[in-house]
Amino acid sequence: MQRENQHSDSLYPALPPIEFPPGMVWLIGAGPGDPSLLTLQGAQALARADIIVHDSLVSPKLLRWRQDAEIVFAGKRGGKASPSQADISLRLIEFSRKGHRVARLKGGDPFVFARGGEEALALVRAGVPIRVTPGVTAGIGGLAYAGIPLTHRDTNQSVTFITGHDHTGSAPAAIDWASLAKGSQVLVMYMAMKHFSAIASELMRAGRAPAEPVAVIAQATLPGQVTLESSLGQAVADIARHGLQAPAIICVGHNARLRMAIDWYAALTGGESRTSEPLGPDAPAKWGGIW
Amino acid sequence: MQRENQHSDSLYPALPPIEFPPGMVWLIGAGPGDPSLLTLQGAQALARADIIVHDSLVSPKLLRWRQDAEIVFAGKRGGKASPSQADISLRLIEFSRKGHRVARLKGGDPFVFARGGEEALALVRAGVPIRVTPGVTAGIGGLAYAGIPLTHRDTNQSVTFITGHDHTGSAPAAIDWASLAKGSQVLVMYMAMKHFSAIASELMRAGRAPAEPVAVIAQATLPGQVTLESSLGQAVADIARHGLQAPAIICVGHNARLRMAIDWYAALTGGESRTSEPLGPDAPAKWGGIW
Repeated sequence: MQRENQHSDSLYPALPPIEFPPGMVWLIGAGPGDPSLLTLQGAQALARADIIVHDSLVSPKLLRWRQDAEIVFAGKRGGKASPSQADISLRLIEFSRKGHRVARLKGGDPFVFARGGEEALALVRAGVPIRVTPGVTAGIGGLAYAGIPLTHRDTNQSVTFITGHDHTGSAPAAIDWASLAKGSQVLVMYMAMKHFSAIASELMRAGRAPAEPVAVIAQATLPGQVTLESSLGQAVADIARHGLQAPAIICVGHNARLRMAIDWYAALTGGESRTSEPLGPDAPAKWGGIW
Repeated sequence: MQRENQHSDSLYPALPPIEFPPGMVWLIGAGPGDPSLLTLQGAQALARADIIVHDSLVSPKLLRWRQDAEIVFAGKRGGKASPSQADISLRLIEFSRKGHRVARLKGGDPFVFARGGEEALALVRAGVPIRVTPGVTAGIGGLAYAGIPLTHRDTNQSVTFITGHDHTGSAPAAIDWASLAKGSQVLVMYMAMKHFSAIASELMRAGRAPAEPVAVIAQATLPGQVTLESSLGQAVADIARHGLQAPAIICVGHNARLRMAIDWYAALTGGESRTSEPLGPDAPAKWGGIW
């Protein structure tokens, strides 16, 4: 019954091309870091762009691929002032008016904590035609690479994505942490490293147990991805002790423990599943550390 | 300054191949429906699979592309009993033991309300090597195609994904609707058509306004996608009146109103932006109907 592996003629399915007229700005989610997590549609758009305007977390491999295009950086650079959102939108409008095909390449998904909505609104107001290609967001992609299912019937029927700071740079004041702590079975946080001490305190004050599992995923989906296994009560100290840096995704919830069995990346590189019952009573001692 | 559109040599970047050894089961997110929302990595895995085990919502175009592979359907079919989760896992294990390269192709993302975690756990327990390729989940992709940003600084710093039924088939009993209603600024629901009447009542009882915008997106990202614009108090009646069928994504939150400006798909097909101030006081009259 063993069959030969039948290679297809091509690595990719033939799909009808999507029109990319001059003057259009195409918002594209680049995915969380690994360039192979770009969608086929996103690649097709990039392939035909005249100008690619990108953020910090976009894979350099995608930009090198299109080095014949004009590459414009519009993200934050350590120590330097980053362009304001209004300035980025104005540049996109200007490129469009010059008749360029503009790919606006954003890390993750353009509409999940990425200000893609603000850019889209500014472009529409200026009469610029747009398209949007969604992408794999880091909260989903990073957890998948860490072997953590976002949902599992035995742990949660809901998952909440939160940003760890609002536009003032503080922990978001509009968030009702007490209600979220009660209502959200799993919390997945973006850009939360800076204020996680305050956030963890809020969650525990509202009744989340200090022993609740926390996973911190840095460099999500990149070769240097590391996952810190900790708990709500210990995570702040553990992050400092291991010197974990932003950008990172923080997952708070019992689903994280499934990683003890499902960490497929470790298994592929010689590691062994730590337990086959990650949600069972025998498992707790095996949770912890940095991988 | 106008440049020629410089076509790249290829539509896709050259990426290092990922090993797909015989006996591996590769869990792949197919995306929400549009086949071009598959990731490059997912396509590479499919290209080399001997067997593709797929669910109902996977694009037939992807299956036709690999018609030289063995195609196994493991989803629900109207009126017929669907295979149990245990049966699917057993078949995957059996295919692996015969030395096949098995692509387990799931709609959306395999770890978001798709039981990918249960399958992964069963496979690991059986000693089967696995990989996981995340995908664009319908809650993100469907909203992007409807012109609705999941997050916007003026409306929300959090978004909660919820399944509308648990494994008993009822509205999930483990969900604390009152707390979620208070804490979650935007709710995006999967498989919630059947129980939305009960869910909407719970949310309003907990204080969400009957006038709060609701968008119901059926056939997400497919050519037949339709979006119903309604409100928490009217959505159940509007769904029935327009005969909207599952599968659909339901978004509850003020972010939905951004669609009045950002509905790029309508704009590409000749529609006009209804307002440039979708969150402003002049907008309410323009919200409503099916598109």
